[in-house]
Amino acid sequence: MTVVYDRPVRFEDVDPAGIVFFPRFLSYCHEAMETFFAALPGGYAALITQRRIGFPAVHLEVDFKSPLRYGDVARIAIDVPHVGNRSATLRYTLTRAADGHAIALVTHICAIAALDVLKAIAIPDDIRAVLEAHKA
Amino acid sequence: MTVVYDRPVRFEDVDPAGIVFFPRFLSYCHEAMETFFAALPGGYAALITQRRIGFPAVHLEVDFKSPLRYGDVARIAIDVPHVGNRSATLRYTLTRAADGHAIALVTHICAIAALDVLKAIAIPDDIRAVLEAHKA
Amino acid sequence: MTVVYDRPVRFEDVDPAGIVFFPRFLSYCHEAMETFFAALPGGYAALITQRRIGFPAVHLEVDFKSPLRYGDVARIAIDVPHVGNRSATLRYTLTRAADGHAIALVTHICAIAALDVLKAIAIPDDIRAVLEAHKA
Amino acid sequence: MTVVYDRPVRFEDVDPAGIVFFPRFLSYCHEAMETFFAALPGGYAALITQRRIGFPAVHLEVDFKSPLRYGDVARIAIDVPHVGNRSATLRYTLTRAADGHAIALVTHICAIAALDVLKAIAIPDDIRAVLEAHKA
Repeated sequence: MTVVYDRPVRFEDVDPAGIVFFPRFLSYCHEAMETFFAALPGGYAALITQRRIGFPAVHLEVDFKSPLRYGDVARIAIDVPHVGNRSATLRYTLTRAADGHAIALVTHICAIAALDVLKAIAIPDDIRAVLEAHKA
Repeated sequence: MTVVYDRPVRFEDVDPAGIVFFPRFLSYCHEAMETFFAALPGGYAALITQRRIGFPAVHLEVDFKSPLRYGDVARIAIDVPHVGNRSATLRYTLTRAADGHAIALVTHICAIAALDVLKAIAIPDDIRAVLEAHKA
Repeated sequence: MTVVYDRPVRFEDVDPAGIVFFPRFLSYCHEAMETFFAALPGGYAALITQRRIGFPAVHLEVDFKSPLRYGDVARIAIDVPHVGNRSATLRYTLTRAADGHAIALVTHICAIAALDVLKAIAIPDDIRAVLEAHKA
Repeated sequence: MTVVYDRPVRFEDVDPAGIVFFPRFLSYCHEAMETFFAALPGGYAALITQRRIGFPAVHLEVDFKSPLRYGDVARIAIDVPHVGNRSATLRYTLTRAADGHAIALVTHICAIAALDVLKAIAIPDDIRAVLEAHKA
């Protein structure tokens, strides 16, 4: 199963070179991840603010294939190549929504952490279930 | 030779988890890169706005070692492991300025491109000289 | 007629104080304005990138009534109190979508400008029509 | 007494219209405010993260006089026209550092608040002293 999130390029995402500033790609992916966890009660926001569980990045790899321009909509598909004990790998495939043109591939390893002490924890069952459901 | 750029963590860089939001690390690196090219006449800004030459990202790899918190200063050292014909690899080593603690390692392959057509070009001599001067 | 734009608070909008960082309110309003001009062919993006017409801010006034928190959705209603020769006043009323609670009121006077020379111009007819249709 | 903060325009601050995106002006002002409170032990960061005292915006007014472009440095002077019981008015005068050209004038009324309950409090003495020292 794959979660898909459509993200229109916003005015402020575009840099003086006329294309989306590359760190913004990762903001788009994070928004897609927020959507990904919408199935949990209270969604990603409740995870952070109530359960105080977060996903600090451990490793990141991005292949940029084509630029995004103002007026484009990025389509972001998430799947989960790996679920570990205290970490997981999320993969974001970005295409241009209008024509499916490849934009970028992002591989994102994150820890599952107790935010107040910022220590990795065993993945809680409900979070594991969401991750497993999107296994690549 | 290594260029070093000190970047205080700003209020708006810090996320609801209490640490610097990971895409912001790449904004910090880009600021360091802007400083890196300060030696050219008019600096990075003139490259972009007058010569219309830019450095679109091709590949990115980040190892996150420790979080940055509000109140920290990130120290970013840039060197250049590789200079090609139409692309170069920049490496950013992020430490916490106060104690040298390792924060992240960013490897950033970028093309050198004519911005108006967004096509890779042979690296102009003055830009190549800056890159070569910081060869790892 | 009023245009309404719903904007979920994103992780990166929230500051270390736990609420949406106040300049982000203006990003939300700008997104609402991009939606507002969606009726024009190619939308706001084509205005900027093809016709090279923009709306630089001249004056801004914001009353903050309640904070926005992570998990909230901001509902932004736009109307247009005034249309001049080369400028217009847009008003954004922000409420919390869940319960209609008042969040902020933003009054935004912008010039209509030719971007390449950054000079105010007489408002083109099709843009004027959109503005007039939303007169308060 | 006036606190002055110089802020180079960064690549990512500039929008597709070629000028600094107007909400970024307020980020610049906030950075200036962080500098303004550097005199307190631990600076603004300790206020937020340790004392849990913040300055939520209540009212904001901005006159935009000239655009900022990539390559410019914004010079931001802060003074304090008014100090109340639980709120204060900060005024930011933005000029272009190179030639003193007027850029913007920002008037910012903020509450002094206990962040954990987000309630206005009487201004603590040390904070009041900083504010009073910069009375217009």
